[in-house]
Amino acid sequence: MAEGHFPRLALIGIGLIGSSIALAARRAGATDHIAIHSRTPETLHRAENLGLGDSYHADLADAVRDADCVILCVPVGISGAIAKAIADTLKPGAIVTDVGSVKASVVAQMTPHLPATAHFVPGHPVAGTENSGPDAGFAELFDNRWCILTPFPETDAGAVAQLAAFWRRLGAYVESMTPEHHDLVLAITSHVPHLIAYNIVGTAADLETVSQSEVMKFSAGGFRDFTRIAASDPTMWRDIFLHNREAVLEMLARFSEDLSALQRLIRYGEGDKLFDLFTRTRAIRNGIIEAGQETAAADFGRPHGGDEDQGG
Amino acid sequence: MAEGHFPRLALIGIGLIGSSIALAARRAGATDHIAIHSRTPETLHRAENLGLGDSYHADLADAVRDADCVILCVPVGISGAIAKAIADTLKPGAIVTDVGSVKASVVAQMTPHLPATAHFVPGHPVAGTENSGPDAGFAELFDNRWCILTPFPETDAGAVAQLAAFWRRLGAYVESMTPEHHDLVLAITSHVPHLIAYNIVGTAADLETVSQSEVMKFSAGGFRDFTRIAASDPTMWRDIFLHNREAVLEMLARFSEDLSALQRLIRYGEGDKLFDLFTRTRAIRNGIIEAGQETAAADFGRPHGGDEDQGG
Repeated sequence: MAEGHFPRLALIGIGLIGSSIALAARRAGATDHIAIHSRTPETLHRAENLGLGDSYHADLADAVRDADCVILCVPVGISGAIAKAIADTLKPGAIVTDVGSVKASVVAQMTPHLPATAHFVPGHPVAGTENSGPDAGFAELFDNRWCILTPFPETDAGAVAQLAAFWRRLGAYVESMTPEHHDLVLAITSHVPHLIAYNIVGTAADLETVSQSEVMKFSAGGFRDFTRIAASDPTMWRDIFLHNREAVLEMLARFSEDLSALQRLIRYGEGDKLFDLFTRTRAIRNGIIEAGQETAAADFGRPHGGDEDQGG
Repeated sequence: MAEGHFPRLALIGIGLIGSSIALAARRAGATDHIAIHSRTPETLHRAENLGLGDSYHADLADAVRDADCVILCVPVGISGAIAKAIADTLKPGAIVTDVGSVKASVVAQMTPHLPATAHFVPGHPVAGTENSGPDAGFAELFDNRWCILTPFPETDAGAVAQLAAFWRRLGAYVESMTPEHHDLVLAITSHVPHLIAYNIVGTAADLETVSQSEVMKFSAGGFRDFTRIAASDPTMWRDIFLHNREAVLEMLARFSEDLSALQRLIRYGEGDKLFDLFTRTRAIRNGIIEAGQETAAADFGRPHGGDEDQGG
């Protein structure tokens, strides 16, 4: 096989990430054939209408037959069931990977089922939007984003290199770490942020003293930023919290401890300490912009005024 | 005076909001003369180089002399000192207003100093970006955003109507409420969101198990959205928390209570309840988009890929 090229690629699940992989792989010439499976008939149909793949399979085993690389793009809670369903059909030497935001649980779920003849290399492209489904994908999603691989020490180095080269073809940078470290990193950079966004949107919805209409009208003061990530796919996020429980609870405890300290600073009017924290946090954003992971444009470069806000 | 037109407008403070008012008022033909004061010589100089006003005054009293409308665009903590300094120079019949994100404290600070011959109408345009200073302003900032006025029952109705018309000329919608209700609404739609954003960015910076470089590289999973509002002006935000203490602590208590409940759901693996919350929060974002306060474009319409992320 050419570097980073899979003659036959199977995508299990065709939501935001699956459809973006299909489009990015096509753009990069990283595959000759994309076989697509979805457990939802309407989604499979929609993927076909959008022309995302070369073949469409209601049956899981059909989708992975003869595939050189199989990518699970499904909520992490069903990884084990899928591994079990495809195990007997996997071509010897096939690479099996996934895109889940939790790695230790996915490893624990899938490893017992997969044959020794397959190369299992868990993965996670750290990229996304709040939209879901096969219509949400776009070829540029992974450009300049990081894809984390969590191979086992005993995994075939050639298979890991081949998968890394595939992700680089799709526009991503690649880094390797252990599943456990991945889960800690993502707990603070993704899972707890989502949790507190979901939480404050829920809090605001339940208030008796402030109406929902007021919350919406006056959301431009900061609240609306939180609603973006609180609009992400509920099934995917339920599974993430159930399957990265320990790391999420650990990071959440740190967050709550810090928040209590901050609350105390406000209660006792400690302006200098508030000022110090608010100054320090500015530097982190600049680091993220310098790392190429964020736009420097004010307000995310959101359009202002006019009727662009009336869309969709 | 023509409706919403002030022959002479004085801006006290020329940061993001002050400079945006200058540009928006000019765009709308809502004034004939803009007099600008800043307590920082460099800022006043910069405003002059940018051509934001018609006259520039290092002395506060000079700036407000003969002004038909005086707008305080300063951190809320110095509202009282400014009211005291301008009181003797205010033209009889002048409208005095502000743009602070806290209203009850501003009212308490300013009212004792202002002469009965001036019309004091506290205000707050709910709009902004994470940038600050006279270079950050733009004429479209208030377009389709809400400006809240909190007039007293005894305030001259003509003065209130005139100020409301001015804000509408600048592109904003106008709503009136009491200072106390304003402070509750903003505590949940702006102040607590900022507080938890500052907090999680601080938590992430202090971890021993995850490096700052990892936090930055893998921030596209959600964290980076929080860094935007945690990059806002530290002085402004210190003052907001010190001056809206009661409402912030009340809303923060609700947030923390809800977060504890959510933490419990994760600990005990209550997937259905997590799913329900995550579904409910999606609807709120749709409401905000329908209310014209947010773009429907995925990921705030952030550009993806390419080198747009390398800017400034």
